[in-house]
Amino acid sequence: MARFHCLTFLTDYGLEDAFVAVCHAVASQIAPDLRITDITHLIPLGDIQRGATVLAQAVPYFPPAVHVAVVDPGVGTARRGVAVEAGGSLFVGPDNGLLSVAVAAAGGAVRAVSLTNRALWRDTTAATFHGRDIFMPVAARLAAGFPLDEAGDPVEVASLVTLPQPECRITGGRAHVEVVTVDGFGNVQLSLPGADAPRAGLMPGTTVTLAWDDREITVPFVTTFGEVAPGGPLCYRDSGDWVAIAVAGGDAARRFDLRPGTRMTLTVA
Amino acid sequence: MARFHCLTFLTDYGLEDAFVAVCHAVASQIAPDLRITDITHLIPLGDIQRGATVLAQAVPYFPPAVHVAVVDPGVGTARRGVAVEAGGSLFVGPDNGLLSVAVAAAGGAVRAVSLTNRALWRDTTAATFHGRDIFMPVAARLAAGFPLDEAGDPVEVASLVTLPQPECRITGGRAHVEVVTVDGFGNVQLSLPGADAPRAGLMPGTTVTLAWDDREITVPFVTTFGEVAPGGPLCYRDSGDWVAIAVAGGDAARRFDLRPGTRMTLTVA
Amino acid sequence: MARFHCLTFLTDYGLEDAFVAVCHAVASQIAPDLRITDITHLIPLGDIQRGATVLAQAVPYFPPAVHVAVVDPGVGTARRGVAVEAGGSLFVGPDNGLLSVAVAAAGGAVRAVSLTNRALWRDTTAATFHGRDIFMPVAARLAAGFPLDEAGDPVEVASLVTLPQPECRITGGRAHVEVVTVDGFGNVQLSLPGADAPRAGLMPGTTVTLAWDDREITVPFVTTFGEVAPGGPLCYRDSGDWVAIAVAGGDAARRFDLRPGTRMTLTVA
Repeated sequence: MARFHCLTFLTDYGLEDAFVAVCHAVASQIAPDLRITDITHLIPLGDIQRGATVLAQAVPYFPPAVHVAVVDPGVGTARRGVAVEAGGSLFVGPDNGLLSVAVAAAGGAVRAVSLTNRALWRDTTAATFHGRDIFMPVAARLAAGFPLDEAGDPVEVASLVTLPQPECRITGGRAHVEVVTVDGFGNVQLSLPGADAPRAGLMPGTTVTLAWDDREITVPFVTTFGEVAPGGPLCYRDSGDWVAIAVAGGDAARRFDLRPGTRMTLTVA
Repeated sequence: MARFHCLTFLTDYGLEDAFVAVCHAVASQIAPDLRITDITHLIPLGDIQRGATVLAQAVPYFPPAVHVAVVDPGVGTARRGVAVEAGGSLFVGPDNGLLSVAVAAAGGAVRAVSLTNRALWRDTTAATFHGRDIFMPVAARLAAGFPLDEAGDPVEVASLVTLPQPECRITGGRAHVEVVTVDGFGNVQLSLPGADAPRAGLMPGTTVTLAWDDREITVPFVTTFGEVAPGGPLCYRDSGDWVAIAVAGGDAARRFDLRPGTRMTLTVA
Repeated sequence: MARFHCLTFLTDYGLEDAFVAVCHAVASQIAPDLRITDITHLIPLGDIQRGATVLAQAVPYFPPAVHVAVVDPGVGTARRGVAVEAGGSLFVGPDNGLLSVAVAAAGGAVRAVSLTNRALWRDTTAATFHGRDIFMPVAARLAAGFPLDEAGDPVEVASLVTLPQPECRITGGRAHVEVVTVDGFGNVQLSLPGADAPRAGLMPGTTVTLAWDDREITVPFVTTFGEVAPGGPLCYRDSGDWVAIAVAGGDAARRFDLRPGTRMTLTVA
């Protein structure tokens, strides 16, 4: 009996080739009733941090599912392929940190296996396309009810690769944070949860000074883009409830030359 | 009992983020048997005119459906969210003109409501992501059979925001028209319905002079691109049956610097 | 009774317009239970060679299906529309070579018809959108069980347009090959099947000299990208089991200015 009806798929495969479709075909033949939802396939090539962030943004809106993610610069090397149980869902992909942010957000890994059971793989396996040959067929079988424990050797959850937690400290009314990611519109998400914003003094109606490197800008903290004039910068709680920087009708990342990892201090005037 | 089995989705969200997938996830959990078809998510950011045109191009080929469209620069401001009944289908999105061209083409609005019934929204609602938190959950519930009248306060259909009708006059054997939209190939659709082309003298075998600003070109009026040499400009009735300008194997919009709103006179020699 | 449950779709329509969605809508209304998988819609406009190659790469991973492909610079001219049976699947599209590589890989054409039965077309047919008006409705009806023989006039399979076979000769320990295609990452696939690589001396651990035009490079023949340093060039058997050239973490086509049709000699040192 099927354990999961929903499988999500996130990669850096792009949309110009048949790679994504071929993975769909492999999964559909194993689990014909599975609903496969593509999260995105436009993660920049090999950008594990960006892939991990987007996966973590998407997962909370899905029912329990098998989440397959492949951003895998080390494909074919010694890095493990894993399946991880967290929050009632399964996460399948390379053990390079890609799954770690979503797994943590789902409550942390409960069990994990290394995908060593070759009986679940495709018959022939290319060294450069584990998405098609290992991750998708294993994920589809897990969705169809195959037991996780038999998908491979048990792995200590503490040994799973995790990405470094971005800095987020609130001290003396200041927030010391990092740029986590930039979305397709150029909106800049910071490592400060929206729920912690008031503790840093960030509330609608306030004005906040953002300082990084040798730059400093002062912007209003608002609820919607419509509260500032077109072209105006702003700080707000974004749709995933993280504090973020945007430009109304513009691209904040480009305008302020911000990229993931930039450290920044927020001070309310 | 489900009222609609098909939901379409058009936005300016792009394909780099998880926004589209998250909306699918929200709808699928409310109405698991719904077939969701993405029309496009590459409407240029905030381009309501382009979104309205593409939506109107797509709708006639679908069975009765719930059409969700979100190009919404005013998200979170006072603009209404609406659901509009027209031609046996429902149109859900911001009341900023985005739905108006498709609604008119479907025969005009019969009924409309402002989406004020918060019981149909997601439990928590972000000010910047009404696609996920309001439009999709309401649309999925309407598809599943929830009555339109109970989705919110009734709205006078005459009060719905509509985009200005592009100019199209045929006088003295001349057509005075406007560029309506440019597709991904650079083909330039004019505001002249194909059915009215003969009245302006445009028939296969004729030659037409197009004049705009201080430019003038003379091109053959043909049925297929194959009738002109590669690189040659042409005028034709496009696949939506609008008169259009193209370049065989090329990009007419770029070559002639044409964009939506450009006014033009067509004269058959 | 449905003959096929799966339909694939490959075009050069792009993702900015409603063209793809409209084709889905047409097929779904004829065959509601059909699973439609998009292979890609980002084939460069009119690039039949690239479309044929990507289609052939995808087909082997699907169950028996109706494969619809439309890269059709001659739409509306005298070129035939065809449906071709090969390897238990049906291939539907223009008879311009687009289907030929996949058909050959599936074992060759068994039967073919020209799509002259207008009863299977949409009621109104635009000269420039046969994907919507002919190929998709015919394909959906064939999937639903309509007999191939009644879809149009029989065609001699020997008369179907085929693309020229790319050069591949192994003589005197040298392989004379051609660049077949470049994927979205810039990996360069050659016309040398992986299974023939050993006959040309190409085996893991060897070093191979690639010579073309007035250039020459010497690279390791490896199994995975991880065996070379980031930025290093390499030769390998790709995921479709063709010999290919890549740059670890880079774009080989751009770096070495390689494009489809470039002839090249491979010599193992």
